[in-house]
Amino acid sequence: MRATVMYGTHDVRVETVPDARLIEPTDALVVVTRACICGSDLWPYNSMEHTETGKRMGHEFIGLVAEVGSDVRTVRKGDLVVAPFAWSDGTCEFCQKGLQTSCLHGGWWGGTELDGGQGEAVRVPQADGTLVVLPVSADHALMPSLLTLSDVMGTGHHAALAARVESGKIAAVVGDGAVGLCGVIAARRLGADRIIMLGRHADRIALARDFGATEVVSERGDEAIERVRELTSGLGAHSVLECVGHAEAMRTAVSIARPGGAVGRVGLPQENAIPHAQETFFANVSIAGGPAPVRAYMEELLPDVLEGRIEPGRVFDRVTNIDGVPDGYRAMNERQSIKVMIAF
Amino acid sequence: MRATVMYGTHDVRVETVPDARLIEPTDALVVVTRACICGSDLWPYNSMEHTETGKRMGHEFIGLVAEVGSDVRTVRKGDLVVAPFAWSDGTCEFCQKGLQTSCLHGGWWGGTELDGGQGEAVRVPQADGTLVVLPVSADHALMPSLLTLSDVMGTGHHAALAARVESGKIAAVVGDGAVGLCGVIAARRLGADRIIMLGRHADRIALARDFGATEVVSERGDEAIERVRELTSGLGAHSVLECVGHAEAMRTAVSIARPGGAVGRVGLPQENAIPHAQETFFANVSIAGGPAPVRAYMEELLPDVLEGRIEPGRVFDRVTNIDGVPDGYRAMNERQSIKVMIAF
Repeated sequence: MRATVMYGTHDVRVETVPDARLIEPTDALVVVTRACICGSDLWPYNSMEHTETGKRMGHEFIGLVAEVGSDVRTVRKGDLVVAPFAWSDGTCEFCQKGLQTSCLHGGWWGGTELDGGQGEAVRVPQADGTLVVLPVSADHALMPSLLTLSDVMGTGHHAALAARVESGKIAAVVGDGAVGLCGVIAARRLGADRIIMLGRHADRIALARDFGATEVVSERGDEAIERVRELTSGLGAHSVLECVGHAEAMRTAVSIARPGGAVGRVGLPQENAIPHAQETFFANVSIAGGPAPVRAYMEELLPDVLEGRIEPGRVFDRVTNIDGVPDGYRAMNERQSIKVMIAF
Repeated sequence: MRATVMYGTHDVRVETVPDARLIEPTDALVVVTRACICGSDLWPYNSMEHTETGKRMGHEFIGLVAEVGSDVRTVRKGDLVVAPFAWSDGTCEFCQKGLQTSCLHGGWWGGTELDGGQGEAVRVPQADGTLVVLPVSADHALMPSLLTLSDVMGTGHHAALAARVESGKIAAVVGDGAVGLCGVIAARRLGADRIIMLGRHADRIALARDFGATEVVSERGDEAIERVRELTSGLGAHSVLECVGHAEAMRTAVSIARPGGAVGRVGLPQENAIPHAQETFFANVSIAGGPAPVRAYMEELLPDVLEGRIEPGRVFDRVTNIDGVPDGYRAMNERQSIKVMIAF
């Protein structure tokens, strides 16, 4: 089968790899129909050291179940399924609490041991705990929005929950990538009174406004902080969604939260310390979040997608077949595209 | 009147200072009957640069109202009152939400502008928002426990709330000072199934066990982390109360929280970054807390003190008159005393 393999910085190839196949009785074999490239794929795209073996890529996909292991109970051959960006058994202590990203028997797609979503097929471990069946056909018009349930929409929702967004509150979203844009959808969905988007790309800002952003701050660094303060009577936002992960974004996020407010962080931290520990302490600002347990959110968000109340699929502004994946990485990296969908 | 003034490292003096007096119509004049020395007073005690003017000390006190300004409504001459460690108007946006430490018109005791609690009398700004009347006489046997409502008991409670202690959870308390000990009381009060105290002083550990600690970890650093893991099936504690503030304590705290767990920090951070940002991210560990809005907790905790359900006053193991305050600082600093009460 063909799949995406990353060998180093800016070196993404589509190659023939061994066919995916069942190994464990709890596995399902899924033939991928839709997948995509994630903003987090750009971190290794810009920093990975060269390796001879390469790493299989992709952690967001929808596909048709081709075969299941003997212990699989909840999905069957022919089902259309969506996979979360981490696989999980659904039964361990953490899965039961809705924190599937910390599953004691789970893990992450791709790398050197497992298939990735940016390929023709995937062996899905712990299929019962991992996959969610979609009640539509594989060519349904909602595919883009359904595909976002595998990561970015659930991740935006996680940021909003961690930032304690609720009715009456002012939310601020740091980052205008696909996750930030889904964070706007999530903040609106949870009832935020106002949503301030911090971002600078015209196409993304326009989409953010469509999704519910009420104000846009395009300044950077201290000027952005100052501008958010001006917009919030000097107090800051109640709920800050940090959807980038690099150091300046985190500094901005903790600096625009008002006393008693919360920062929900879903951007992969590029530094191993959270800045301004004293300022956030004196203001009783809480910091929460991490990899979103999107598996836990799929059932809650699915009806909103199916019934058209939210349209996170609009973050996809480019579609390619598998041969176009390397160029898709380039386009996202050069900010020519918000998010690239792969149709098989 | 006589009051405690700090002039520099290890230089605490009891001196005659100008009498406290009403200035604003919202002030009350309180004659102090009980006060105490705080663990946080030891930070400047060990690091303050010499100053000619000195700083008035003390932020925990109980006293009798001697006089009130013309706008004061809720306290009267003769009332016995307890003051929180920060004064606040009780009406601003943050006070209304129970975050009096961020009051828009509040502030902190002592320094160069205001009276401190470690003196014979205090001008209390914003008396209506700040003071709580105690329904007992000034010589009541519960004075020590009532005095802890001004800081350490409310601070321990804040740590437990920020760490999301509740029934069924395993709590861990980092720090065996007065705040950590009150954190044990608070964790038990909120229903923690198990309470692991990290501390090494025999007298404090004995008190922690009396207060409800079920296990004690006396190792330090990595060994302490390892020991807590062993005690929690390798997973860590659900709720970690960080009651120290220095770098190693914070590192320990974030390292012993289990995935999805919470660190409630009330120790004044000595470093301006929260460590292990990536580990806590991947584990979805939240970090909350700050200066406790003890004013918000007084009404909730007061009945438990008055009815003897909690005895936080047991953290006081030494009583002095005002002349003994400098020696009280020395004794606490040398760990000869957990907490020193000042009786006037």
